[in-house]
Amino acid sequence: MKEFKKISSRENSLIKLICALQSSAKARKENGSFVLEGLRICTDAYENSIRFDKLIVSQTAKIKYSEQITGFSECSEECYELPDSLFKKISDTATPQGVIAVSRIKDLSATEIDLNGRYIALENVADPSNLGAISRTAEALGVTGIILSSGGCDPYSPKALRASMGTLLRMPLIILEDFSNCLPKLGLKSFACVVDNTALSINGVRFDDGSVIIIGNEANGITEETKRVATQLITIPMNGKAESLNAAVAASISMWEMMK
Amino acid sequence: MKEFKKISSRENSLIKLICALQSSAKARKENGSFVLEGLRICTDAYENSIRFDKLIVSQTAKIKYSEQITGFSECSEECYELPDSLFKKISDTATPQGVIAVSRIKDLSATEIDLNGRYIALENVADPSNLGAISRTAEALGVTGIILSSGGCDPYSPKALRASMGTLLRMPLIILEDFSNCLPKLGLKSFACVVDNTALSINGVRFDDGSVIIIGNEANGITEETKRVATQLITIPMNGKAESLNAAVAASISMWEMMK
Repeated sequence: MKEFKKISSRENSLIKLICALQSSAKARKENGSFVLEGLRICTDAYENSIRFDKLIVSQTAKIKYSEQITGFSECSEECYELPDSLFKKISDTATPQGVIAVSRIKDLSATEIDLNGRYIALENVADPSNLGAISRTAEALGVTGIILSSGGCDPYSPKALRASMGTLLRMPLIILEDFSNCLPKLGLKSFACVVDNTALSINGVRFDDGSVIIIGNEANGITEETKRVATQLITIPMNGKAESLNAAVAASISMWEMMK
Repeated sequence: MKEFKKISSRENSLIKLICALQSSAKARKENGSFVLEGLRICTDAYENSIRFDKLIVSQTAKIKYSEQITGFSECSEECYELPDSLFKKISDTATPQGVIAVSRIKDLSATEIDLNGRYIALENVADPSNLGAISRTAEALGVTGIILSSGGCDPYSPKALRASMGTLLRMPLIILEDFSNCLPKLGLKSFACVVDNTALSINGVRFDDGSVIIIGNEANGITEETKRVATQLITIPMNGKAESLNAAVAASISMWEMMK
């Protein structure tokens, strides 16, 4: 096992960095890195050949999970060991397992669009649990990639990564700065999923290769600008008093129809 | 507006009762009542002619939402007014709106099964957010009712009610004490949704009237006993490294297929 440097002070700059990366999308952007917490997601990352800049473990975890941590340490630049009490300060969970890795954010601008692919696009989806669930479903159904507006929730937030069961680390991600302007230029046929009885029922849509389904913000749906530039407005027919479906549910049913 | 009795002591028995109903499924069962918190869900309940045993409002809310609260008070047996600081103690949310109603739990044993209906059954689904999302989708897609195992999460928990956007108050609910034993006796054709490539793909299933789809626990899936008594094992085909879909997503795709 690699050498683990010991940290015992709360004032240590690495401790401060981890806290910032855990809580702030801005800090993640500025540092170009993000946090992976817990054995499960670190294992996912490790098995997907994601390199760790830093590996931080608690004293207890180092003994308890020595086998996994030895593996992780091999793909880590630097390794650190913390007293359990200090680890608690940098954890995002109530009962920390004692394992945190810091990785670099990929350059998403380099992700290329597959013009024969089938994508899901999220315009300002704000809830990390929804983003995580959508990513998990997208991978399970074989969706090519996920297109995100820059105004939505950060795919590198700890909550989104956890809810995605690590799939956000594997799915091709594209982030668009100016969503409604850039989306039409991707060269995909776009289907904006709206709550509107006059839109085409998704049951009547034939999805071909080179398609993208757009799901909007939880409270406000898809913006007027994006509706205007979409190839087709589609809708999931609803009964009853329901005003709308949960964003993750609407995305899941839409992706299911697109991928059948 | 009805007369609102004032409560100012934390030691008041009603205060203690609300706290218990907010946090404990056992307390809800013993008292046969549950809490509705917030304007949105109280309005939902009011519009669905659900009577309130008790209406409890904060001083600020009584002025701010006087119109709605006047309406609520008309279908309430007793009305109470609390200082804002005390209301915070009984609230389940970080920023309370200041409106809570206490209602009686319906006698669910009286709910009759429609032998021509199409149901969703949840065996030990534990997460109230999942139950809430499933209920919301079930209503939107026109599902007849929701069948719950008694070991799952309480449909009257504040979190489940909130996540359901009030739909749990409107959907017919059936709770089965001995799920795998009672389910076959309902007279419905049952489809157990499993993660198993050898099960029948849901794409090949023709759902008729008198059907029920079963979704299992988030971590453990459907029990062996229930798999044995189900009419048919079905599966949602998956690609990639995904081990399973989120329970609410699996339920949503299944209900979508059943209701088309």
